[in-house]
Amino acid sequence: PDTPFIADAKRGDIGSTAARQAVALFDTLGADAVTASPYLGVDAIEPLLAGEERFVYVLCRTSNPGASELQDRLMAADADGAALPLYLQVAHLVAGWGNRYPRVGLVVGATAPAEMALVRAAAPELPFLVPGVGAQGGDGATVLEYGPATAGVAAGRRGGALLVNVSRGIAGATAGQADAAAALLDAAQHWAALLRC
Amino acid sequence: PDTPFIADAKRGDIGSTAARQAVALFDTLGADAVTASPYLGVDAIEPLLAGEERFVYVLCRTSNPGASELQDRLMAADADGAALPLYLQVAHLVAGWGNRYPRVGLVVGATAPAEMALVRAAAPELPFLVPGVGAQGGDGATVLEYGPATAGVAAGRRGGALLVNVSRGIAGATAGQADAAAALLDAAQHWAALLRC
Repeated sequence: PDTPFIADAKRGDIGSTAARQAVALFDTLGADAVTASPYLGVDAIEPLLAGEERFVYVLCRTSNPGASELQDRLMAADADGAALPLYLQVAHLVAGWGNRYPRVGLVVGATAPAEMALVRAAAPELPFLVPGVGAQGGDGATVLEYGPATAGVAAGRRGGALLVNVSRGIAGATAGQADAAAALLDAAQHWAALLRC
Repeated sequence: PDTPFIADAKRGDIGSTAARQAVALFDTLGADAVTASPYLGVDAIEPLLAGEERFVYVLCRTSNPGASELQDRLMAADADGAALPLYLQVAHLVAGWGNRYPRVGLVVGATAPAEMALVRAAAPELPFLVPGVGAQGGDGATVLEYGPATAGVAAGRRGGALLVNVSRGIAGATAGQADAAAALLDAAQHWAALLRC
């Protein structure tokens, strides 16, 4: 029960469908949190947030090689004259949702550390789920430098400030190893030490 | 076999995951087409397009009430000085993908007819999948006015130019009806006549 179960399902849909997605992911599968896309707006995510035991990480700056294609495109300048890339627009938007729904965070990939620092500045309080460390090439030390929330502000929030997941970097460690269990343990301990947990 | 099976699953993910989504949706479930999100970029959709029997509709302007929250935000002006909303930026982007992957189209909701006309102008050749007619309040006649591709250009493309789906508007017609089969048939014939198919 102490191990969080995060369904990286990238859901979100019109209300009637998202409500059923919530049943499937939280009630049937037993997830503690899910990932969701920001593209449809908050009404497509609200059903996933309806319940004190539910948590949603919204895609902000993803870890895939082509993330920049749409996410880095610049938006029109806002009232302050700043022209933000789309992923920072999303960070601000979700920070606003976070005022209404305290159980919301952002997906920010480890493969783009400079962008992670900008997202952290735009959303100092939101928990981050950080994929991309391990098989995708993201650097754990850099995540620890840029990812943590401003000291103190995230202490009271569910989900904490920074959750780094290493999936294939551990699951794939058995390849070519005679003792699969030992290989998994080694890999898990390697990443745990590097991420200081 | 003449009835298209479209999995409105809103998928797309890093390559290794999207490749498994393709197996699940196309190979296991037998879908002819799936819907996918543009947010991660084309590399998150490419595995769904790998195969001559696969077709992907990319979310462009969705039919939900809050679609405008992110999709209508203006992008920075392009080289021509035009500041496009995000959904039109996506339409142009997917039209570019369509040059490489001929089996790609757009999801454009019937609940936003003015936006549909602008998407059609931006992507004159792409097939549209149009949700939102029926339970969501979209008007079929308006879709027939704004949705069709420019005459001739879409004739040779798989997926045709315009595919309007009515789901709850037909499935929900049985509520309170003694003869459920007759109610479904009536609803289906009503929408088929209205959409002239």
